Amino acid sequence: MYQGLKGFRDFYPEEMAAHRAVIDSVEAVTRRYGFREIGTPRLERAEMWTDKSGDEIVEELYAFEDKGGRMVTLTPELTPTVARMVVARQQALSKPIKWVSTRPFWRYEQVQQGRFREFYQTNVDTFGTDDPRADAEIIAVAADMMRELGLPAEEFEFRVSHRDILGGLFESMDDAVDTEAAIRAVDKSAKIETEEYYGLLTEAGLSRAEAEEFDRLLTRGDLDELVEFAGTERVEDAVENLRDVLAETERLGAREVCTVSLETARGLDYYTGVVFECFDAKGRVSRSIFGGGRYDDLIEQFGGQPTPAVGFAVGVMNSTLPELLEVADVFPEEAISTDYYVLTAGDSDEVLDVAADVAGDLRALGHVVETDLSGRGFGSQMGYADSIEAETVVIVGERDLADDVVTLKDMGTGDQTQAPLDSFPPSEGRPTYEDYEG
Amino acid sequence: MYQGLKGFRDFYPEEMAAHRAVIDSVEAVTRRYGFREIGTPRLERAEMWTDKSGDEIVEELYAFEDKGGRMVTLTPELTPTVARMVVARQQALSKPIKWVSTRPFWRYEQVQQGRFREFYQTNVDTFGTDDPRADAEIIAVAADMMRELGLPAEEFEFRVSHRDILGGLFESMDDAVDTEAAIRAVDKSAKIETEEYYGLLTEAGLSRAEAEEFDRLLTRGDLDELVEFAGTERVEDAVENLRDVLAETERLGAREVCTVSLETARGLDYYTGVVFECFDAKGRVSRSIFGGGRYDDLIEQFGGQPTPAVGFAVGVMNSTLPELLEVADVFPEEAISTDYYVLTAGDSDEVLDVAADVAGDLRALGHVVETDLSGRGFGSQMGYADSIEAETVVIVGERDLADDVVTLKDMGTGDQTQAPLDSFPPSEGRPTYEDYEG
Repeated sequence: MYQGLKGFRDFYPEEMAAHRAVIDSVEAVTRRYGFREIGTPRLERAEMWTDKSGDEIVEELYAFEDKGGRMVTLTPELTPTVARMVVARQQALSKPIKWVSTRPFWRYEQVQQGRFREFYQTNVDTFGTDDPRADAEIIAVAADMMRELGLPAEEFEFRVSHRDILGGLFESMDDAVDTEAAIRAVDKSAKIETEEYYGLLTEAGLSRAEAEEFDRLLTRGDLDELVEFAGTERVEDAVENLRDVLAETERLGAREVCTVSLETARGLDYYTGVVFECFDAKGRVSRSIFGGGRYDDLIEQFGGQPTPAVGFAVGVMNSTLPELLEVADVFPEEAISTDYYVLTAGDSDEVLDVAADVAGDLRALGHVVETDLSGRGFGSQMGYADSIEAETVVIVGERDLADDVVTLKDMGTGDQTQAPLDSFPPSEGRPTYEDYEG
Repeated sequence: MYQGLKGFRDFYPEEMAAHRAVIDSVEAVTRRYGFREIGTPRLERAEMWTDKSGDEIVEELYAFEDKGGRMVTLTPELTPTVARMVVARQQALSKPIKWVSTRPFWRYEQVQQGRFREFYQTNVDTFGTDDPRADAEIIAVAADMMRELGLPAEEFEFRVSHRDILGGLFESMDDAVDTEAAIRAVDKSAKIETEEYYGLLTEAGLSRAEAEEFDRLLTRGDLDELVEFAGTERVEDAVENLRDVLAETERLGAREVCTVSLETARGLDYYTGVVFECFDAKGRVSRSIFGGGRYDDLIEQFGGQPTPAVGFAVGVMNSTLPELLEVADVFPEEAISTDYYVLTAGDSDEVLDVAADVAGDLRALGHVVETDLSGRGFGSQMGYADSIEAETVVIVGERDLADDVVTLKDMGTGDQTQAPLDSFPPSEGRPTYEDYEG
């Protein structure tokens, strides 16, 4: 007997039905905003990741040499692939480019509670505009998605920050600061002790006094004070951009879920502007639920024309979002559903023919219909109908057929009634016990 | 600039929309028959394939050693994974087990016209019943799927055979015949010259006279004659089973697309009963479109209780089915669609607020709505609306707003009319020019 791999998960129908409902909700929201589905390869050249040396992600690649001698890798994230696709057709694509897709990714991480090596993400990205409206729309899509999943505004918060405020602040300091290292320190600040945080900041080039002052400023989060402290156009512009984005989220009805939180930096180095991270507002799930932001330099780094970009990725299976939905008690029911089970009482040709016709007619109406595939008796079929959560059982039996009727059984109440074959099933709708009783 | 890998394909929105429509059709049909979606890992232990030595598939595996020293492989097919999943919960699962899923698979094949290394399949399987009704239902699902895709019965045919008729015939011969080798020869017969075919059959242990007689019998396809020729219960039973399955396909409305074609053997060794293969009835696509059949021994080989099984797999992307749909002129349109573009004429707060409200209201009705994300002028926005195939453009401008109206433009006809803001958008439906003109 074979075992599946550690960090990978089988989804049986009940579990899959619940996750599919989550994915359907997420995709429905993105579709309404005009994001278009793309299909992307699961395997790419490994150099798309390894060329940027020093990235943590490289350590976790499922990379190998293929039979043609190429170093390839299972993709750990979507962004390099969409960047490649944008570059390949940058002239032909009308801007803004708005893309969405849901698919698995792979990272060889330590397997632990809620961490999988195969995880499914929906990626939502807009390319070709640096307007604050584009950032705000991305945030609004994310907020609508959470609402669509059944989470009211008090259940989650988007902590919004701006990479250029942080970068500009570091730049404005007296010493030469390693901005990337300093931003990584900020990104870790919530998870580490203050002394360790200051240590990382001073390693990145801040003086002890600067580190303390910086921490105070960030914690207070007064944007005007930050502009004054830095005294540079860069920080002024970044603050203005952040305010513009927030104003646009107001227009789109998403401002209420946003908190300015300059400590939020997002782990990835490629962000350049507004970044946001979704957290459980009640702290039940401690890790970030998902996040995103603006990354205006990436397409150019991939050999394309300068193309601003903003987006987010949300883990929809094997990730923290389902965890939050669970604790907030809005995770979809893990159950399959069946509209009709057509039960054959007896095995005469007439019974089997009528049952097949009834099942076919109900399917033509779009309903989920099962029939006996094993030559079972009445009780055994009824048990199976129950196990698949059939709402209505249509009993086709010889005695009924002599009167040109079938019996409808409501599996919720157990009530039964007869329906004349010449009006069942009707040419439309979803006929149930109610329609024929009395 | 990076390149994607050979044999892998990027799907841009227009192409993806068409393929998504194909997948939606296929899945809708399986859902109506009560097949339940499962989610499966893309990576498995390589031994699930390499343990069965000598299989052609092993040569084409994307296998590698992971960072934990395990030999793993990108899955080239679904069957071993579902077998593993059935075995893992065989007591708990209520029978019949009816599963469906759509996802990519990988084989390192020679890249040529219509052959990809990454291809997407929908797999449909029923476990736990050997009743002919289960075989017939699988064939009926496949037939309904083709109809749902827009292919009338004269466009395709299912060539139906039975592995045990072939096996039984070989067994009944005087010499010791290597049945698997002989069946592989049958599987190739349509693609090779008669002499080469006879050569393969004699290599498998038939005498030259037997090979010729066998070829004649198969070509004639007279089932009674076959039973008489073999004179064994095994062949008699197999013929009876094939007839029972065909009779059941009649009941399910799928008999008309089935042709008994005993030369159809399916390449895979694990089939045990009825097998079928779908072909272009008009011969425009020469390769098989897809196929399936009964494989009653596999679950036991995977360490489970004996569990009969029947199913099919159909390639929905990077495969021959889209090719057939293309030549039959029923491949879905490669186009994106947009219900509304909300155009902002001017950038006053009032215009932007109303536009955001209108867009939000239309989205709340479930429609696909885009707005300006780049601060563009009127003409440029109209051009973009055209590029995304917007059906209706809602123009929000200051002069209109002074009269509490917006303008609706039908992008098909170019006609415009005004709609009062207090009734637009309405609380339901999909308001267009037609609803407000005159």
